[in-house]
Parts: sequence; C-alpha cells; structure tokens
Amino acid sequence: MLQHIPEVQALIDSALSEDQAFNDPTTRDIVPQDLRGMGVLKAKAAGVLAGVDVSLAVFQRMDPDLQTEALSPDGSRLELGDIVARVSGRACSILQAERTALNLLQRMSGIATATARYVEAVEGLGPRIIDTRKTAPGMRYLDKYAVRAGGGFNHRQNLADGILIKDNHIRALRSLGISLKETVEMAIGLASHTIKVEVEVTNLEELEDALAGGAHIIMLDNMTPEEMRRCVQIVDGRAVIEASGGINMDSVRAVAETGVDLISVGGLTHSPDALDISLDLVFEQ
Amino acid sequence: MLQHIPEVQALIDSALSEDQAFNDPTTRDIVPQDLRGMGVLKAKAAGVLAGVDVSLAVFQRMDPDLQTEALSPDGSRLELGDIVARVSGRACSILQAERTALNLLQRMSGIATATARYVEAVEGLGPRIIDTRKTAPGMRYLDKYAVRAGGGFNHRQNLADGILIKDNHIRALRSLGISLKETVEMAIGLASHTIKVEVEVTNLEELEDALAGGAHIIMLDNMTPEEMRRCVQIVDGRAVIEASGGINMDSVRAVAETGVDLISVGGLTHSPDALDISLDLVFEQ
Amino acid sequence: MLQHIPEVQALIDSALSEDQAFNDPTTRDIVPQDLRGMGVLKAKAAGVLAGVDVSLAVFQRMDPDLQTEALSPDGSRLELGDIVARVSGRACSILQAERTALNLLQRMSGIATATARYVEAVEGLGPRIIDTRKTAPGMRYLDKYAVRAGGGFNHRQNLADGILIKDNHIRALRSLGISLKETVEMAIGLASHTIKVEVEVTNLEELEDALAGGAHIIMLDNMTPEEMRRCVQIVDGRAVIEASGGINMDSVRAVAETGVDLISVGGLTHSPDALDISLDLVFEQ
Amino acid sequence: MLQHIPEVQALIDSALSEDQAFNDPTTRDIVPQDLRGMGVLKAKAAGVLAGVDVSLAVFQRMDPDLQTEALSPDGSRLELGDIVARVSGRACSILQAERTALNLLQRMSGIATATARYVEAVEGLGPRIIDTRKTAPGMRYLDKYAVRAGGGFNHRQNLADGILIKDNHIRALRSLGISLKETVEMAIGLASHTIKVEVEVTNLEELEDALAGGAHIIMLDNMTPEEMRRCVQIVDGRAVIEASGGINMDSVRAVAETGVDLISVGGLTHSPDALDISLDLVFEQ
Amino acid sequence: MLQHIPEVQALIDSALSEDQAFNDPTTRDIVPQDLRGMGVLKAKAAGVLAGVDVSLAVFQRMDPDLQTEALSPDGSRLELGDIVARVSGRACSILQAERTALNLLQRMSGIATATARYVEAVEGLGPRIIDTRKTAPGMRYLDKYAVRAGGGFNHRQNLADGILIKDNHIRALRSLGISLKETVEMAIGLASHTIKVEVEVTNLEELEDALAGGAHIIMLDNMTPEEMRRCVQIVDGRAVIEASGGINMDSVRAVAETGVDLISVGGLTHSPDALDISLDLVFEQ
Amino acid sequence: MLQHIPEVQALIDSALSEDQAFNDPTTRDIVPQDLRGMGVLKAKAAGVLAGVDVSLAVFQRMDPDLQTEALSPDGSRLELGDIVARVSGRACSILQAERTALNLLQRMSGIATATARYVEAVEGLGPRIIDTRKTAPGMRYLDKYAVRAGGGFNHRQNLADGILIKDNHIRALRSLGISLKETVEMAIGLASHTIKVEVEVTNLEELEDALAGGAHIIMLDNMTPEEMRRCVQIVDGRAVIEASGGINMDSVRAVAETGVDLISVGGLTHSPDALDISLDLVFEQ
Repeated sequence: MLQHIPEVQALIDSALSEDQAFNDPTTRDIVPQDLRGMGVLKAKAAGVLAGVDVSLAVFQRMDPDLQTEALSPDGSRLELGDIVARVSGRACSILQAERTALNLLQRMSGIATATARYVEAVEGLGPRIIDTRKTAPGMRYLDKYAVRAGGGFNHRQNLADGILIKDNHIRALRSLGISLKETVEMAIGLASHTIKVEVEVTNLEELEDALAGGAHIIMLDNMTPEEMRRCVQIVDGRAVIEASGGINMDSVRAVAETGVDLISVGGLTHSPDALDISLDLVFEQ
Repeated sequence: MLQHIPEVQALIDSALSEDQAFNDPTTRDIVPQDLRGMGVLKAKAAGVLAGVDVSLAVFQRMDPDLQTEALSPDGSRLELGDIVARVSGRACSILQAERTALNLLQRMSGIATATARYVEAVEGLGPRIIDTRKTAPGMRYLDKYAVRAGGGFNHRQNLADGILIKDNHIRALRSLGISLKETVEMAIGLASHTIKVEVEVTNLEELEDALAGGAHIIMLDNMTPEEMRRCVQIVDGRAVIEASGGINMDSVRAVAETGVDLISVGGLTHSPDALDISLDLVFEQ
Repeated sequence: MLQHIPEVQALIDSALSEDQAFNDPTTRDIVPQDLRGMGVLKAKAAGVLAGVDVSLAVFQRMDPDLQTEALSPDGSRLELGDIVARVSGRACSILQAERTALNLLQRMSGIATATARYVEAVEGLGPRIIDTRKTAPGMRYLDKYAVRAGGGFNHRQNLADGILIKDNHIRALRSLGISLKETVEMAIGLASHTIKVEVEVTNLEELEDALAGGAHIIMLDNMTPEEMRRCVQIVDGRAVIEASGGINMDSVRAVAETGVDLISVGGLTHSPDALDISLDLVFEQ
Repeated sequence: MLQHIPEVQALIDSALSEDQAFNDPTTRDIVPQDLRGMGVLKAKAAGVLAGVDVSLAVFQRMDPDLQTEALSPDGSRLELGDIVARVSGRACSILQAERTALNLLQRMSGIATATARYVEAVEGLGPRIIDTRKTAPGMRYLDKYAVRAGGGFNHRQNLADGILIKDNHIRALRSLGISLKETVEMAIGLASHTIKVEVEVTNLEELEDALAGGAHIIMLDNMTPEEMRRCVQIVDGRAVIEASGGINMDSVRAVAETGVDLISVGGLTHSPDALDISLDLVFEQ
Repeated sequence: MLQHIPEVQALIDSALSEDQAFNDPTTRDIVPQDLRGMGVLKAKAAGVLAGVDVSLAVFQRMDPDLQTEALSPDGSRLELGDIVARVSGRACSILQAERTALNLLQRMSGIATATARYVEAVEGLGPRIIDTRKTAPGMRYLDKYAVRAGGGFNHRQNLADGILIKDNHIRALRSLGISLKETVEMAIGLASHTIKVEVEVTNLEELEDALAGGAHIIMLDNMTPEEMRRCVQIVDGRAVIEASGGINMDSVRAVAETGVDLISVGGLTHSPDALDISLDLVFEQ
Repeated sequence: MLQHIPEVQALIDSALSEDQAFNDPTTRDIVPQDLRGMGVLKAKAAGVLAGVDVSLAVFQRMDPDLQTEALSPDGSRLELGDIVARVSGRACSILQAERTALNLLQRMSGIATATARYVEAVEGLGPRIIDTRKTAPGMRYLDKYAVRAGGGFNHRQNLADGILIKDNHIRALRSLGISLKETVEMAIGLASHTIKVEVEVTNLEELEDALAGGAHIIMLDNMTPEEMRRCVQIVDGRAVIEASGGINMDSVRAVAETGVDLISVGGLTHSPDALDISLDLVFEQ
C-alpha cells in the first residue's frame, strides 16, 4: 500500500517534476503518441527487490492508462536476468517515466540488498541488523522500508520515536554540572510513557551511569568486540544493547558474536550501491 | 545562493519534517531551552566539500537566531580533521537540526569527492567527467551541483534539456520501420533550435547512421576502449563524443585516452559513499 | 520556537487564507493604510495561557512590520483583565489578522485551561493527566502543546509513537484464533526497540493475558474506580497503568486515588471550551 | 460532493499525515495484511450527523480498495446506537484511518448537534441561528458546513464576504475625527455592489448613526432583550438585525422573541462538544 | 502589502520555478558571481503602473540581498521613458529574476492601463467601470488588484462573493417549471444576509420578473443603449443596474450615457495588452 | 495527456480554489443537487482550438461523475458556432466549474489562434514562428503548448533550456573589459554539451563578434528587414538566425522574406486576445 501514502505520492510527483518528465522533447518529437509497447524491468545483478509497487506507481502517475504488473513482491531474491515487473501501454509514457521509476527502484533495492548481506552475515546469531537516521533527505520512509524488505529492522523513524541521549547531549548536561546518571533519570522521569530511553556510552564508567539511571537501551559506540563482550556481561539483561559505529561487512559477525541485541549500520542508507535494474521496451511485430 | 532556491528550501523543510526535528523529546526533556553552545562541523575523512551553505541553512531554518559560519567554500579539499563550519546559539536547536544538516552535507560532499577522484584520474587528458540523471529522487539539483563542486560537468538536468535518442527509442522507431538515420533527421528537424540531438550507439553501423542523420552528439554505449578509439576516428570531429556505460575508477583513464570528449559516470550520483563529517558541540566553561 | 515550525507556519498561512485576511474590503474601504494603532490582547476570563507566540506570529505573517510583544509566557495563569500581549503598527494589518490570531489563541488557551483544571483536581496524588489523539484535524501538534502548557503530559503524538493494542485489534486477532497473550508476545517480539507496547483491557482476564504477554503498559478501559484498584493490585508494578474512558471532572479524583499512573482525558482536545480573549485597538490621541 | 474539494482533500491528507497513519507499527506488526473486516460507525449519543462523506473519504484516501457506505445523509437525526456508515476491506487500512475519520466526524456532528439545539430553541419564532468566523484553524469550510447540516445559516465565510464595521473599526475612524455615520457612508460608497454593509452597535446613538449612514445590516452587540426590542422598533424594517454576543441556550429564546432577524452564536464552532461516534470492527466467523 | 500575501508569494515562487530562474546556465557560465550592477525598470510606452511592489518582491525572493526601490506607487501615470523602479546588487540575481518580474509587471500594468482608458472614456458620467471573473488562471487576485490600480472597481472576486443568477441558472430552473420570479425569491430567501442577489436579464419580461422577485442588482446582458435606457426607466431606482456584454472602447461612452450604474468589461482581464516596460542593467565605470 | 501533469493539476486546483468554485451560493441556494444537464461548449468566433482536454479536466476535478467529450482535438480550426466539447451530469457541478474551464480554454485558444495567423502570414516562406518567455505567471507550460497547437514552435521553455546572451549580459561583461567575442567563447567552452549558445546582436559589429566567438544561434534584435537581409548574407549558414523585437502582423511577412530561420513574437503569449467560447446548459424536456 506504500504507493498510496500521500508523502510517497508527493515524492513521486516531485521526482517526475524535477525530471520534467512531462516535457520530454525526445519522445514528443520522434515517438508517435499512439505507439504501444511493453516495458520489461529486469535485474542486471543479483540482489533483493524493494520498491516495485512504488516504481510502478510512477508509471501510473505519468499515465493512468498504463497497465502494470509486479512479478515479484518486495523482499524477493533476484538473480541476474530475473524479470521484476512489466508495464504496458503508450510507449511515450513508459519512456518518460522510466528514469524516475528506476531511480527509486534501484536505490531501494540497493538498500535491501545491502541489508540482506548483513543479515546473512550474522545468521544463526542473535542480533538484529538495524538502520539509522542517516538517510537521503526526503527518502526517510522509503529508505527504512527498504531496510525491512532486506530483512533488517528499523531504529527510530525520526526524533519523536524515542529518546536517545548521545555524546553531544551528555556533554551539554555536563557543562551544567549534571551527571549522566542524573540526565538519564531526568529523561526517564519526563519521557512519554510510550517511548524508551536509550543512552550512548563510550566506556564502562558511562555504562554504569546509564544503567544506574535506569536506561532502557544502551548503545555501545565504536567499541571493540572485546569491549562489547565486557559490556554485555555487565549489563546482564538489565537493558537492550545496541552496537554502533563503523561496523562493516568485515566486522559485523565478530560484533554479533559478542551477544549484543542490535547492530546498527549507517552505511545501509547513507552509502548504498544502487542495484542495477534495466527497462527494455519490446514491441509486437 | 543555493540555499535561497524555493525548491531547496522545500527540500530542507521536508527533510526537517520527516525527522520531526521540531518534536524531539530528547532535547525537550533534558536540555535547558536557554543553554547555548557551538557546533563544530569537522571532516572525519579526506574529500571535497559540497553543500556547506545548504546544510547551514538547515540550522537557520530550525532557529533563525542561530549564527552560522562556513570556513571553506564548496569545492574545497578537506583533510581529516579540517573544520568545515561552525554554528552557535541554542544547543537545543543545533541538536535538533544536526542529523538533517549532516545528511545533506555528507551526501553532497560524498558526490563531490567521488567526482574529484574521476577528474584526477583523467588529469592531463581531454575529456570532461559528467554525471547522469541517476540521482536520488528529489535531490537532482543538489546532486548535480555537487558534481560541479567536485570538478565535473553536468549532462542533462532533466528530460527537457536536450534530445537523447537511446536504445529504447531506436527500437520503438524500428518497430515502425523507421531507420535510425530517419529518426535522427526527424529529431533534428523538429527539435527546438536551442537544444542539441544526442544519439546512443552500440556499434559502428549505428554510429554511421547517427552521423548521417546529423546527430550533434554521439554516446558510445558500453564499448571497449578499442571500439571507442575506432569511433573517434570515424566521427573525426563531426560530433561531440560521450563515453558511457559501466565506466569505473579502474577503466576511466583508458577511456579518456581514446579521445572521447565526455565520460559519463552514473555511480557519481546513484551510489556515492557519504563523506564522514561530524558535529561536535562545545560549551564554554 | 513553536512559531518557526514549518507545519505551524503552513497552518498559519492556511488559516489566514481561509479567512481571506489579505482581501478584506472592510479595512480596505474605510481604514487609511497609514493609520497606526496598538492592539491589546486581554483575557476576558480566568484561565491558562497557551499559544501566545503562535498567535503573535499570525500578525507578523500578515505584516512583517508589526511589532509584537508577549507579556506572559505560555503556561501562565490568567485572571480576568490580564493583558496577554500587545501588537503595534498599521491598524489595517492588525484588524485583518485579528480573528485568525484569536482563533488559535482561544483554542489553545482553552485546552491549557481545561488541562490545568484536571491537573489541579488530582493534586497531591500520583497520576499524570494525559491527552489522546482526539484532536482537531490539522491541530495535533498545537493541541498537544497546549496540554503540556496546562501541566498535562502527552500520550502518543501519532500512530508511530508507540504500540497500542485496542479492542478492535484484539478482536481482529481473535477472529484468527490468536489469543491476546499471543498477540502481545508478537508485538513485543516485532516492535522497534525504541517504543513500548500498551494493551487496552476491559476485564481481569484480559489484564492477566496482557501481563503474561509482557505488555509494558496497561490501559484500563471504562472501569469503575473499584475495578481499577483491583487491577492496580494485580499489576503490582509489572507495568505502567493508564485509566481511560469517560473520565471527567467529577470522577477524576476518585480515579486518581486508585493508584493508576496515568489518566487520559479525550475531552481536553476533542471538546475544549475556547478561553475568551479579546483584542482592543487603541490609538494615541 | 464535499469530499472532492481540493482543500478538503488537502485537510484529509494533512490529518492522516499528522497521525502518521501510514506508519502504524501496531497494525504492521500484529494484523495480517490480508485480513478483511467491516467497520461499523455507530452513534453512542443522540445528535445530528455531519461529515459522513468526508469521514468516509478518509478511509478511501487511506486505501482506495475500501468499500464505504453511508447509511444516513448529513443532517440526519441520530439516536444512541444508530449505525451511521459501514466500511469494508483490509482491516489494517480501516484501523489506520479510524482515528482521523472519527476526529472529523465527531467534531462536525458535534457542531451540527449544537446548532440543531439552538434552532429548536427558537422554533416558531422568526430568527435564523447563524455562526461566526470563530472556527478551528483550517476547519472553516467544514465547521460552517456542519452548521448548515444542523439547520443553521452562515454568517460571512471569510473577510471578503461582506463588510462588517466593528468596534475596533469605529474606534479607528473616530481617532481620525470621522463619525460613525460618515464611516458607514464611506463604506456604502466604496463597497463592491455585490456585498452588504453591516455595522456593530452597542447603544441607541450608534444605531441611529448606522441607520443614517445607510447600513444594510445592524449587529446589536451584547444587549439585553429589552434593549434589542427597542432597537427593533427603531430600525422598523430599514435594516436586517443581528443579535450577537454571549447568547447561550438559556437566553436564546428570549432573544428570538425580541424580533431580531438573526442570532449569531460563536460557541457553535469555537467550543463545540464532539458527538460520540465509535467504530467497531466485525469479522465474519 | 500585496507582496506579503502567501498566495502571491506562492505565485512568485511558482513563476520563478517554471522559469528555472535558479538554474540559469547563461549567467552561471559567463557572469562573475560578485559583479554588482543596477537594474533600471523603465516604461517604454505610456500607461498606468500596477504591480511594482510585487515585481520587486520577485527580485528579493531571488536574492534577499538585492536592494529595491519603487519610484512610483501603483496607480501612477507613466510616460515613455519614466523610471519605475531600481534594483541593485548581484548582477546575476537581477538577470535571473528579470523575466519573471517583468511578466508580472507588464501584465498588471497592461490591465491598469486598459482600465484607465475606460474610466477616462466615461469621465463625467456616473457609472463605474468594473471587471469580471474572466482572469488568467492563478492571477485572479493580482488581475483584480490591477483593475483597481487603473481606477476601476471589482465585481465578484469569486463565486462566494455574491449571488449572480445567469442565463444557465434561469434555464435550469425553468426546466423544472420554476419561473424567474420564483427563482429570485428563493435566492433572496436563502442567501446569506451579507451578500446581494444579482440577476442577468436579456429582455423586459425578465427584467420585470427579476424586479418582482426582489433582485438587488440587475445585469443587462448584450442590450443596445436604447434598450438599456428603457430598462433604467423601468427599474427607476429599485435596483443597481450593470451593463454587460461586448462593451468596448467604441461603445462604452454611449452605454454610460444610458444611466446604468456599472459597466463590466471582460476584456480588461481576459485580453489585456502587456504594457512595455524594460529592465536595463547599468554598471559603474 | 496534458491534463495528467501534476503541475497542470495543481494549476487547475488553484484556479478552482481562487474562484471558490466549491463554495458557490448561487447554485447551492437555487439549483437542485440532483438536476442533470448537458453543457455545450461552442465557439462564438473563428479560431484555433487549444486546451480542450485541460478544460474538460477542470469539470472532472470539480465532480468525478461528470461525463466529458471533446469533439475536436487541440489544433483544430474552429468556425463560429462549432461545438467544441460536451459535458454531462449534475448541473450544479457544471455551473461551478464553467468559468474556470472557460478561462483556460479561451486563453489557450486565443494564443493558438494568434499563432496560426502568424504562421499563415509567412506561409510558403521558410521561417518558423516561435514564442518567447513572456508568458502569464504560472501558465508557461500551457501558453507554450498553445503556441504549438497553433502551428508555432517554442523558444526556450525556461532559462535552463539554452544559453542566450542578451544586451544586459553583454553590457555586464563589457564593464569588466571582456569583449563579446570572448564572452561567446567562454559560454561555448563552459556550456553543457546538450544546449546551444545564442547571442542577441543589434548591429553588424556585434554580429561579427558573435560569429567569431562561435555562436550557434544569432538573434537579430529590432532590425529593419534590410538590416536583417544583410545579416543573413554575412552569416551565410554559419549559425541559425532568429529575428526578434516588435514584429507584428503587418511586418512579419517582410521579415520572413529576409531569409531568417526563426521569427519570435512576444505578443503571442504576453498579449493574446481570448477566443470567445461559451458554455450553454441544455436540459431534456
């Protein structure tokens, strides 16, 4: 139902608009208005699909008479050459929407694919792979949806979704003579009853303070696996533990083996590689 | 002046809104409204800066009383540890805008950095590095601006900016019995006098057809350097030549040596790695 | 800083627009453009102030040259006759913005005033007074801000802020043969680690199920104080307890005495009485 | 046709957006996507219905596949337990739109219900019950529609709809040495020929001035029934007469008996009590 | 204050956006960012000025650092060569906003100029020159403002501003067996008390019916001056009379001499000739 | 497909909104909601049709149940009395959308009609008639579409579409001691490879400079036919030549005979006469 969301429709409109998709001299001047064809969306690399309904909605926004069909749902594994979807109708309309649709589909599938690699890397071990708020401006909702399509889970959708006391907050409060323990207690006391309080810690002392203050979640920032293991022992079930900071495909399994509950990976959304998916137009003879 | 553009302001508003930056329980509950501090934006990796004014505009949108100062203009080389900008005023406001500002700055600087690497790789040879329309939805203008900040040039901003006859167009016209040469002639005949006609070719036969039709620009799609060199000889100055398709840092210099005029690299904008830039809040003692 | 929020500014623009404030024949035809005066915003009933900065922003949006001054901050107690704010400049501009500014100020102060009455009614006892999502369409953020100005706390800002399993959800799952306990377990298992799971219960059996499933918060729906007291004993600190449903000024203290943690009152935002605040224009002799 | 109005659709979108209706972890995590059910909208108190088509449009905006059916048109009398409408389809979609739809329906029906009470109170006597511009920001059109659904009539929709010279205008002109009679003459002279000139008066002297100036409509502000009766005699058919200011259910009949033509009641829209209407989801066994 | 109206600001933004004023390769590639100059707006034909503040706001929207100065207020008579306004600052910014600013200024001044010609043509006779709703889509407010700047008056701003029963309405009611007199009575009975009822008539029979029904205003549609004169005698002060339909500069004085109160001229806004105003950039030596 | 463009839909919404089409007391008070009729759109003058689908989309936006049928495509020649389109359904809806639909249709058909006159005037000679950027604010896309419907061609859609060095640019560069030839070379060197460089010249010296710099297109500004003829000889095929400035129906054929390639006429869009098209409602007996 992703494609019905007003914000997603607005994003589609704005993306079509920035491409001047409705003002395309190439098709206007050379492709007859009544020529009909079928666009075949095909994976040119292996990966995980995300955004197929959203990208088909781009075609329908361009021309409500286009017929679209998704052949695989979001979350599907794709092999090179797999056909992902088909769109039929006026060739002009397909050509004008092509780039906008592919830009969405390739980014979202790229995020899902990267996420799936991390999820596989920790297979059999406990932790969830989660994302961050490091998304492309305007794409937050779709970027995070793609993480879920790849088997990951979401951290906060936005600032309102939970309390996360980070280094800058801690420093701010310290400049006023307020300890981390007191800061956490204040947050617990004032927070809405529906959200949890997470605290970023960089060493054992901060960890003890955060726990003493009653933190629901502890984020271990930029620690080595050994340090994380030690923190897991200290926390001993009193809080959920998130590992964070500079974790990549090389290090993620070692991190997972430390016993943390969550591993957040910023690169899933701030530096994803687009998954190569092409559109080929075919015409009946 | 980038930050005054209505579309950029709308993007900033929508990015702040998707982060619920104005509804942040973390700062609301623990950081006193009147606490003042200074946010220092610092490069945590070497690269090329882009988007500094846009990201400072995020802070000013959040709180018009924040004072901002860019220490380097867009296009500057950054070394690890370089201070990029400073923002002073209410600590709450800085904290609430931080993520949105960094998301813009890191993406744009990532694109500029990647572009600069390609530009360096072809240094001393003729061709320009250019981008494509494979940008993040909603980010077209800023993505392409960042390419320029990195020393690259822009291909079409959008579909209206020129005529580009690609494989799907060629196939469409062929299904109607119209040759590539005829297609190009039609485009030349109907095009506005202000834009040029570019044709994507995959082999010598198509190249000859495109030239015979009068194409102003030839795009060589997915050719080997040897094939490109042959095409350059055939074109012999009759058209501008763009190399395109799967060109990466390993192959770009070899492509540049073939004598083409332009090298387009989709990855600059569809798969850039964010440049790591952090914000540290400091407080007077 | 409320008035800088893009969504609040958009609301102000849309409110001025629906009143055609810029197209007012009354002032255009009879009030000279250069006549200057001062508008005095005065309480015509006792209550609690909320929205003073937002309503002054209406005047500034109408005419950036207007000078505004708030004499009391939001949350202040008002007595009949108290002057709340002053706005000086072109009389035309003040008159054109008057109704829109007052509509915001009176609604928000009305909500703050009602909230304060409930807060006073439970004074000395434990529970917080909280709101619901029963707000005027488009006014969610300001309605909930006004609750806080009145001394209350906020329940979920929106659906994304927490998990709340209500009667309709329970019935849906039951139709599939899934028990409440299983439903709660599923929610706990899948929920983001940053938000909590609340369950609405109407009887002791559901209460036991919800607790067995691990619910973080229990909402007691439409129970008598006696039933609530029994539930408090059963929960015995294992979850936060919210009393909800048909609670009014007559019953709120009795509810508070049962030992629940939170009392939610829909009427604070779905049926507030506007606080009477007037604007009188004065002119120097 | 109310639901087709672009401004109403924009209000629906913004209301769904502020509730993050499309980002609801409760349904996402526990309610299967393909579970279908029927939502039954039922009156939980007696009143007058308004907004049924608008609120059903909320469901259709959420999910175009939902089937909706209004069982009573706007303006219908409702008894406790009356079924107002039904909505069928994906249970998830119904649950996500529920609160937004009810917020609209309950406010609008609350306004219609209050209006109907006033209309009944003056039954058999002449005057119309009319509203004011004291509406919730953004809800002007729907608030005034609801007044009509309840049997009332509308005063000005916005400032452009007529000329209304109020106390502040009179004071402004007086500060320039211009009498009320002259002010009214000026307004009559300059007003567009399509709108009328109304004057607010607080005493007999102002009444005489307004009549002498040619006012089409006289608003009697905060007068006692005795004073109003005297004014009606003086006007003697030369102008339409509106009674205004602090009129409530206790006083409205006495006011109506004075012979005024119109009675305006601000509370209809600035302080309406929401009408209690619930949505119950039912599932086939 | 015209330029502060949100709808006008939105129009300016959309006009700048449709011209891609912020994406102008001509200035970007050849004009140095720091070159400063002064743009002089000069009349290249005689006429009446309208829109000077709005068009200067275009420059300020483009670049808040531009200094602007209007030398004549709207409504001023212009002779060939008169300097209308000046704008100083970055030459790039002036050049990028030039066309958008001039498009507004030339259209609005063209409307004011045409209006002034009609006003002059009826000088010394009674009737007002008024406009219609035949405006350019999106320009209603500014088009009608320009009519006032030219000395004309406005008919309805929009459909809500008054009741106007035209031929199509009359035909609709007649198809149901309802006479014109009955139609007018119905309208008078139901209309808001703040607006008037106008009836379009094409012959004496309809005129009598409209008067009998109580019409406040009579529109004489496409009548000869002789017919109009006859109608004026019949109406004899019982209603305001508007002459309408195909009136042009050749016929307007004859129409004015018939004694009608208002003469509406559609061409003022549906077919105005732009007034030629140029912008010349000057640079200090 | 024009009517599906998001920007066109936004224009339609804004035009309906500025006319308060959904808030029309005339139809609300006198025309029964269920009365059905047919609106017949008829040419009341000869001309060329443009905008028929866009104007029918106005009716469908007003009421999705209206049935619309275009009897002639855009670009058709119309004789007085020709029926252009029909719209059937609720009479209220047709009446409320009438003015907005006609305003679009009349302007667009007026532009197409004017363009066709110019095209006919140069029949048999070479040059194309082209438009300028002198369009009504917000109407750029539709104004230029109408030019094409009338047989003309488009100059730049917006500033991004090509490089056009005009008198103000030349003067700016000259103030820095940079010659026109150098300016043109700079532009050629920096321009995107997809757009061309046009230079406005006013005399032979500038012409030589522009050619020497490599200009792709030369605009001859305000020259006499004799001067133009001389320029054509000098250019001798080295650049495309556009005649511009003050060309009207009297002079256009003489200009065309000089051998220029393009003739731009600002008046096509800045001062078009609306084509008279009416809507008559008919009802079955």
